Amino acid sequence: MKFSINKNVILEQLQYVSKAISPKNIINILNGIKFELDSKGLSLTASDSNLTIKAFIDKEKIESIDTVGSIIVSNKSLLDIIKNMPEDIIKFEVDDGLRINIKSGECEFNLNCLNSLDYPDIDMSDNKTHIDIKAETLKKMIKQTIFAVSVQESRPLLMGINIKVNGNILECTATDSYRLAKKTVTLDKPYDEVVDIVIPASNIGELEKIISDESKNVEMHIFDKKILFKYENILFQSNLLEGSYPNTSSFIPVDFEHIVNVNLNNYYASINRVALIGQSKDKNIIKMDVNEKEIVLSSLATQIGAGTDKVSITKNNSEEISISFSAKYMIDVLRSFEDEDIIIYMNTDSKPIVVMSASDDSLVQLILPIKTF
Amino acid sequence: MKFSINKNVILEQLQYVSKAISPKNIINILNGIKFELDSKGLSLTASDSNLTIKAFIDKEKIESIDTVGSIIVSNKSLLDIIKNMPEDIIKFEVDDGLRINIKSGECEFNLNCLNSLDYPDIDMSDNKTHIDIKAETLKKMIKQTIFAVSVQESRPLLMGINIKVNGNILECTATDSYRLAKKTVTLDKPYDEVVDIVIPASNIGELEKIISDESKNVEMHIFDKKILFKYENILFQSNLLEGSYPNTSSFIPVDFEHIVNVNLNNYYASINRVALIGQSKDKNIIKMDVNEKEIVLSSLATQIGAGTDKVSITKNNSEEISISFSAKYMIDVLRSFEDEDIIIYMNTDSKPIVVMSASDDSLVQLILPIKTF
Repeated sequence: MKFSINKNVILEQLQYVSKAISPKNIINILNGIKFELDSKGLSLTASDSNLTIKAFIDKEKIESIDTVGSIIVSNKSLLDIIKNMPEDIIKFEVDDGLRINIKSGECEFNLNCLNSLDYPDIDMSDNKTHIDIKAETLKKMIKQTIFAVSVQESRPLLMGINIKVNGNILECTATDSYRLAKKTVTLDKPYDEVVDIVIPASNIGELEKIISDESKNVEMHIFDKKILFKYENILFQSNLLEGSYPNTSSFIPVDFEHIVNVNLNNYYASINRVALIGQSKDKNIIKMDVNEKEIVLSSLATQIGAGTDKVSITKNNSEEISISFSAKYMIDVLRSFEDEDIIIYMNTDSKPIVVMSASDDSLVQLILPIKTF
Repeated sequence: MKFSINKNVILEQLQYVSKAISPKNIINILNGIKFELDSKGLSLTASDSNLTIKAFIDKEKIESIDTVGSIIVSNKSLLDIIKNMPEDIIKFEVDDGLRINIKSGECEFNLNCLNSLDYPDIDMSDNKTHIDIKAETLKKMIKQTIFAVSVQESRPLLMGINIKVNGNILECTATDSYRLAKKTVTLDKPYDEVVDIVIPASNIGELEKIISDESKNVEMHIFDKKILFKYENILFQSNLLEGSYPNTSSFIPVDFEHIVNVNLNNYYASINRVALIGQSKDKNIIKMDVNEKEIVLSSLATQIGAGTDKVSITKNNSEEISISFSAKYMIDVLRSFEDEDIIIYMNTDSKPIVVMSASDDSLVQLILPIKTF
């Protein structure tokens, strides 16, 4: 294998695929990146066995291809080495043994490699049908739901994001059983099969980071036990979590006693202020007293002190309600909206709080209140 | 105590003094900031008993002083609370008990406080004489030496910076016994007494961060067991380390066999590249082969691979030398210079390497080579 390539071209793709390398990994060969060069171009593959990312660099973007071949470069510093190279063009050459020579200007590295034949055989071929989704839509949908997944390994299925497709309606849900985020997307074309899968949040979170050009489309190829995303020159394949995801639609109330319209930025700033009382923002509890004209937010930690703030609102009636919730959960919810106004829906102090945009009903955020005495 | 003040005015001073609060501190009252308001203005004091920082805000910069008094505000979130306040003007009021009310717009906090009478009595009065030094000079001197102090608690004296003053010559030295940084400064006025003190690096490092206006002067008031720096409206008082600092001047060779002139940026970039081979930049060793025209830098880690790079130089003679050193130590040394060219002085592969600027001899950096076989 011998080729030369522009530094930034290879660096960008190495950065994408290296996201599949897990720091926890104990299988030595999976710490490496597989380089495969043929007359069409260079493929770079990395995998932690649950997630595989493969990037293809077309021959048009390669300065010169002298000898084809393949090898596994297993070096934690590979990206730093490429990044620090003194000139724009970098030459790669595998010598007789399992070593790659990387050269640029007067600078030269010889790195020990592994045999590409030892790399696990990972099938990344297409499914016969696929779902098309706009990169922008997919990226936003992930960001608006992923924070609500569980971090508790005792309920592994809740550590994933549930994707349901029925006709041209795609529903994306995440919950840790104390809160729930649900985004509904209308697809351009209906999909023939009914889909109900759970993708590990840690994997789909990496996909969100890789998608940089939001104007493109992403193909979703769904298999029994895995999903393959095709975005630009990148194949992104994740395993699926096994088991049946809870039927979350029954969790979301339909009727509400209290409907409150509030400016998102004002409410967000006040929540952030009042949340400063207590041990840490992650654990602090905020009490919200709602009357016809305003929300009074308050926090109390006996040993420390108390905080309070007010926000103007409009409300559906003059009934009052007092309800308490986790500051962190509400901050996460508010961060998922970009709208000017949001609507907060409530029934009693022990029933779910639902938050939606005032101008768009595709995103539903739900948090359970905390009972205080 | 009752006053109102502009948010940014008090925030800036709170940020300065809070640097004296140690996260390791176990004396409860020292987690607080002492507020003392009289008709002249507001003093803010924080201390971890080794380091005390006191900032004074003149009455001219305070919106209104209604009632004087003092209290200790002991709240980890105090700075965040002030930062997040909705309006520019913040009102502070201590009620009958040990509580402070902090109010801005509709937002209000009531924080539990401690009695200011319980705060340790810390003498921060001037000495009869002092040394004047430019803030810029002091800041630079700290940055150019502090990285070389020891982090090993077994030799506490080396965890400090040694300052010697003789007439109008101030010498600042730091060493961990494997490397040494020494900066010499000429004072505008000679100081009457001979000074030889050691200031804890962790304390003087905070002073460096506080000095923002480099055009000002700093007064150094030296006492038996402490040093008081006066900068603008801030008093910064550190204890001194006890014991006699090693006589470091004998460590620095006077004559050299090899004198190499090299461009700082080129050499720095090459060192950073070659340092990428090995476990971690902190532990990697670089070999330097010097001939009349160039330096060849190389690194080797048997299991990983090898790296090499070349830099053009001019040299005093055609003698060759091979010498090895810690990549991290050389990177630290090179970061302390801002000049275009540096000079590397060497004798043998087991004698100290000395680095100085080609245009200014006030800074001497020394590192011991590492013997490799």
